[in-house]
Amino acid sequence: MSLVNPQTLKGFMELLPKDQILFNKVKEVIRSNYEKFGFLPIDTPVLEYKEVLLSKAGGETEKQIYEFTKGDTNIAMRFDLTVPLAKYCAKNQNELNFPFKRYQIAKVYRGERPQRGRFREFYQADIDIIGNESLSILNDAELPSVIYNIFKELEIGKFTIKINNRKILNGFYEELGLNNKVQEILRIIDKLDKIGIELVTNELRKMELDGLEISKILEFINLKGTNEEIIAKLENMNIKNEMFNLGVSELKEVVNNVYNFGVPKEYIQVDLTIARGLDYYTGTVYETMLDDYNIGSICSGGRYDNLASNFTTKKLPGVGISIGLTRLFDQLTNLGIIKSEKTTTTKILLVPMIEDKRNILKLANIFRSNNINTEVYMENKKLKAVLKYANNQEVPFVGIIGEEEENEKVILIKNMITGNQEKVNITDVQKIIDLIK
Amino acid sequence: MSLVNPQTLKGFMELLPKDQILFNKVKEVIRSNYEKFGFLPIDTPVLEYKEVLLSKAGGETEKQIYEFTKGDTNIAMRFDLTVPLAKYCAKNQNELNFPFKRYQIAKVYRGERPQRGRFREFYQADIDIIGNESLSILNDAELPSVIYNIFKELEIGKFTIKINNRKILNGFYEELGLNNKVQEILRIIDKLDKIGIELVTNELRKMELDGLEISKILEFINLKGTNEEIIAKLENMNIKNEMFNLGVSELKEVVNNVYNFGVPKEYIQVDLTIARGLDYYTGTVYETMLDDYNIGSICSGGRYDNLASNFTTKKLPGVGISIGLTRLFDQLTNLGIIKSEKTTTTKILLVPMIEDKRNILKLANIFRSNNINTEVYMENKKLKAVLKYANNQEVPFVGIIGEEEENEKVILIKNMITGNQEKVNITDVQKIIDLIK
Repeated sequence: MSLVNPQTLKGFMELLPKDQILFNKVKEVIRSNYEKFGFLPIDTPVLEYKEVLLSKAGGETEKQIYEFTKGDTNIAMRFDLTVPLAKYCAKNQNELNFPFKRYQIAKVYRGERPQRGRFREFYQADIDIIGNESLSILNDAELPSVIYNIFKELEIGKFTIKINNRKILNGFYEELGLNNKVQEILRIIDKLDKIGIELVTNELRKMELDGLEISKILEFINLKGTNEEIIAKLENMNIKNEMFNLGVSELKEVVNNVYNFGVPKEYIQVDLTIARGLDYYTGTVYETMLDDYNIGSICSGGRYDNLASNFTTKKLPGVGISIGLTRLFDQLTNLGIIKSEKTTTTKILLVPMIEDKRNILKLANIFRSNNINTEVYMENKKLKAVLKYANNQEVPFVGIIGEEEENEKVILIKNMITGNQEKVNITDVQKIIDLIK
Repeated sequence: MSLVNPQTLKGFMELLPKDQILFNKVKEVIRSNYEKFGFLPIDTPVLEYKEVLLSKAGGETEKQIYEFTKGDTNIAMRFDLTVPLAKYCAKNQNELNFPFKRYQIAKVYRGERPQRGRFREFYQADIDIIGNESLSILNDAELPSVIYNIFKELEIGKFTIKINNRKILNGFYEELGLNNKVQEILRIIDKLDKIGIELVTNELRKMELDGLEISKILEFINLKGTNEEIIAKLENMNIKNEMFNLGVSELKEVVNNVYNFGVPKEYIQVDLTIARGLDYYTGTVYETMLDDYNIGSICSGGRYDNLASNFTTKKLPGVGISIGLTRLFDQLTNLGIIKSEKTTTTKILLVPMIEDKRNILKLANIFRSNNINTEVYMENKKLKAVLKYANNQEVPFVGIIGEEEENEKVILIKNMITGNQEKVNITDVQKIIDLIK
């Protein structure tokens, strides 16, 4: 029989156990912090009715979607966790307790052209807070504090959570009489980081903006200073547009409260160039950058007026953020910012080199009931081969009972890092546990 | 704009948060026990090349598979975690440390006709131990002890792990000269529990077996007694067939050692009717039954000679078991064997009914750094609405600071279960923590 090539699809992350352990650790830091802030878990299906997933999508998303027909049902794989959340909230609106704080950490699918750092299957780690008819702006201030706690615990170095408000952008361009061109202007300005101010100016000129308009736009996006200074300058621009002024007051309230939530000032920065997509967000928007690495936003999100308008007439305003976990993990490990430390989650490898394995199996069960991950080596191999396995596995402790130890009623505990070894009476379980803890 | 019906695909489990919390708890018990026994995590993609997934499959599986073409690639969704494991081991054979003990708890997909208790997307929770060229029979004795620990911790009542060995079955029918009919006979006997002995006899007659053959088969599958008695009877059947005798000695060694691994005798039962599928397993096979409920096997598996023969010439024998988590959860909750107890994982809901929220936000952060899941109520609602939310959420404690408490510099801690409430000085953090822990 001819062999099939055991290959994994391109653009799909598949890790060796050592890296998987690190990945799971990162995922667990995110998960436990989400729960610490009172978010509840949900787990929606990977597959949905195509008409559910595409009720709002279009353009790029629709091209990238994995879809197929089974029987007479048009099925699609989810491309984010937000549309499934909208469906979930609409479907369960009478069962849910609002404000509904949910988290979901799960894989999503996009058939993009695979390239370095882009994945077709990737984890998103999302939190959203959904209100019934209304939702306090304070929630917009809480989300950065969740993110702050996660990235601090992950020890990924200094980062900055950038904040803006879409109402300020929309109001500003309305005031300039450029209502119809807002989306295109925002798309150009979004490229500022990548292409620089000159090319941005060129592109704005191509849109038939006049010199005064362009200079006002450049002045606006170049507003610099502390958060308080930028907000003061916005307040003093003497713009009458209502939406603009509402945006400024929202931004001010969010920024002031973020500090109260315990985020140090140097981690929060008002940035008027942040727009986050074109039609989804309606208020606060966030991006998060590593200060020392230019890898783009590692966590983004914002406020939306109405989550599920395609599914229900009930108004469900919300605010959410998403960590692109798979891509972030790939970047952090490639840059050496985080490193795999453990090849195994096992604490001790017990090796019975004797016929009667009962004592060592009993010991293994005692260790496990003390929450010590314990592996018993079952193969009938020479000690050299066993120690090679233990070394490759990087297990921190090995416990051996050979004939000599059996006669002496002891177990030889070997610290695989220091090389120290010590014989301990087989009945002195507490001493062994103290040694390896 | 017309609304899209926010429905979930049929046959796809989607839980409310309260049930999701219980589901996650069950999943975590399984996961932590897998790690306690030294199994390492892997996370293979949901999608694979179709030729990889179907390298061995056929028949029913092929009909049920979700597959599609993207660009010029034939893609399929995994229908189990074993074929992806085979691919993974073949692909990474030079990086892995054998014996390779891995666990994977993840969703798989089968486009079966949806019916009660059948799911098209469901979690499997698998462990396998893969050897390089050889693998000790002791591993076959360890797996039941992992399962025993999990189901004990889940408190699902008395259960029985049934054990058999395929070599005994194959050898027995070889001895009867029925080599060509083994698979069909096993398929009929597999239905014994469902259709009873008479219908099984009828079906055997239809296969043109003679009366002597049928009576020998019935005598064989009716061998009863303690595990030791059944094994003794098998040894005394005076069958010369080598495979049969190898099977009996393997079964004897597995059963004797399972006890040594700490599984009480009443949880293990040799059952010669267990066959587990038709061509995959080559030695030990397991099924697990609840004693008081007739819901079929809740955990099954066995020994196979060569995991990845479609992908590599390297011989990789293994033994594994799988818990069909989604179906099991559905059955256990429907029968009331396990019940959702918590609507939230949050320990305390803090409610600032005052303008200056800084003290309560500080307190929230202190709680969280003490690993106390803490939600702050952000909405500007009357206390009655807040307490209604707290009640619906079933949060165990509420901490309120209104104007009165602010003036007294205290927080009112209310135990939502007993109704007790107590004012505690806002600076006496340890006292508050002691109250709610």
